[in-house]
Amino acid sequence: MQKECITKIVVRYCETDRMGIVHHSRYYPWFEVARDEFVTAAGVRYFDMEQKGLYLPLVETRSRYIKPAVYGDTVLIRTTLIKLTVVRCVFKYEVYRESDKELLNIGWTTHAFCDHTMKPINLKKKFPDCYEVMTGILTEEE
Amino acid sequence: MQKECITKIVVRYCETDRMGIVHHSRYYPWFEVARDEFVTAAGVRYFDMEQKGLYLPLVETRSRYIKPAVYGDTVLIRTTLIKLTVVRCVFKYEVYRESDKELLNIGWTTHAFCDHTMKPINLKKKFPDCYEVMTGILTEEE
Amino acid sequence: MQKECITKIVVRYCETDRMGIVHHSRYYPWFEVARDEFVTAAGVRYFDMEQKGLYLPLVETRSRYIKPAVYGDTVLIRTTLIKLTVVRCVFKYEVYRESDKELLNIGWTTHAFCDHTMKPINLKKKFPDCYEVMTGILTEEE
Amino acid sequence: MQKECITKIVVRYCETDRMGIVHHSRYYPWFEVARDEFVTAAGVRYFDMEQKGLYLPLVETRSRYIKPAVYGDTVLIRTTLIKLTVVRCVFKYEVYRESDKELLNIGWTTHAFCDHTMKPINLKKKFPDCYEVMTGILTEEE
Repeated sequence: MQKECITKIVVRYCETDRMGIVHHSRYYPWFEVARDEFVTAAGVRYFDMEQKGLYLPLVETRSRYIKPAVYGDTVLIRTTLIKLTVVRCVFKYEVYRESDKELLNIGWTTHAFCDHTMKPINLKKKFPDCYEVMTGILTEEE
Repeated sequence: MQKECITKIVVRYCETDRMGIVHHSRYYPWFEVARDEFVTAAGVRYFDMEQKGLYLPLVETRSRYIKPAVYGDTVLIRTTLIKLTVVRCVFKYEVYRESDKELLNIGWTTHAFCDHTMKPINLKKKFPDCYEVMTGILTEEE
Repeated sequence: MQKECITKIVVRYCETDRMGIVHHSRYYPWFEVARDEFVTAAGVRYFDMEQKGLYLPLVETRSRYIKPAVYGDTVLIRTTLIKLTVVRCVFKYEVYRESDKELLNIGWTTHAFCDHTMKPINLKKKFPDCYEVMTGILTEEE
Repeated sequence: MQKECITKIVVRYCETDRMGIVHHSRYYPWFEVARDEFVTAAGVRYFDMEQKGLYLPLVETRSRYIKPAVYGDTVLIRTTLIKLTVVRCVFKYEVYRESDKELLNIGWTTHAFCDHTMKPINLKKKFPDCYEVMTGILTEEE
């Protein structure tokens, strides 16, 4: 099982602001795309999870802006799962400029495991298969 | 019944792009806010409509960009309902810069009347109260 | 010279709304991505144009919503240039669901040719190379 | 000088996602609106700062999601400046549902003081007036 996933994103014009750089709020949808690709590659499609009644609402988001991404850039996002308990998990995202591999941004998102009514659930008990997959892709934070 | 509604919007920083102007796609969410205020003022809250199973998905959107709105601008949107049949309706939006009343943009949105499964319905038959309210705010296009 | 361009877009979670479908305003950034790929493939990078002082601000946008795109969909956008004069141009976009080639949406964007102060220019006179390239990718509207 | 600012935001339809709640990335533009109102009320318009060559790019953003905001909600954001040095500052945002004053979200944004080339500057030296104003609105974190 791959313990990381590299997602390629081409900066969209509409993601820039009048400062000429990618707006800080726009990294979070990128993280979402990267996370989606990562768990899909691991065998648990986000879409299917929601069909089965498993939701991963955000508990916390965080991002550190090191260098700005600009229009014309392509970025590579390296996603890892750095924490997992039976009730929540933390993903980490490193955003690199493709051209020179410069690190532009680091992000973290913390998710709760919930049912369709947004009530917290114990993932290991309710969705053991999914919990096992997630255990398989867990990385000890370097 | 008021046949028009004036909605005030303060341009958000994140709505600008690297050209330094409000991104063209950003007018549509403004139209949505303006439309929401208009129908709410008329007595039919969008939110309540959806609770009752009435949805107004978009069939067509259109916008003409006359002068750019920029960060620092406050705009006033004048919304009117310019067309109504039992199956669809058309709203019109005029976006003015508040400071000098300059016309910046004109938009139109065409909506279908649908149930929660997105199947078209006859508004007059299914939601006569709502149809009556909308008839009351209809403007003959100038 | 290719007279059309096919752009693949994977629907992002954040592009959906509470109706469960892609929000109508979200098609315009997709058109922008598709247009960018199209002109880049033709040899005139949008980014380079702006560096040289050529801007293509929007004059009009329009979109017809035929069937909704939803989370989980991948769409293919077929972009063509259907009108060109020395002062403006019109691009057309057809959005297909990749899985079954169903047509979901058609859009059009009209652009003016402007300098960095947003003053209209005659493209043929000011940027003859660019005008020639655009003539090469022009399609007579079917 | 007011040491806090209350900003009212009406949830926009397009800010919700298919989970039926406000998308987590959408709180950051709200924070931006709130921050803008706060510093404007204190006498330093964001817009004017940028005109004078003072930029406040983001260094870090963070948000904790306590309860979801939904379409139909109006929220009140209480903004405070909780940290200030000569090179950076931290704003804090508390998002309350207006109807019952329930706390929905807490956010923090860290900003660097930069010139128009995004080079860090010493605010106290380069813009002493602005530094003084910000000192006046600084709150010791409770």
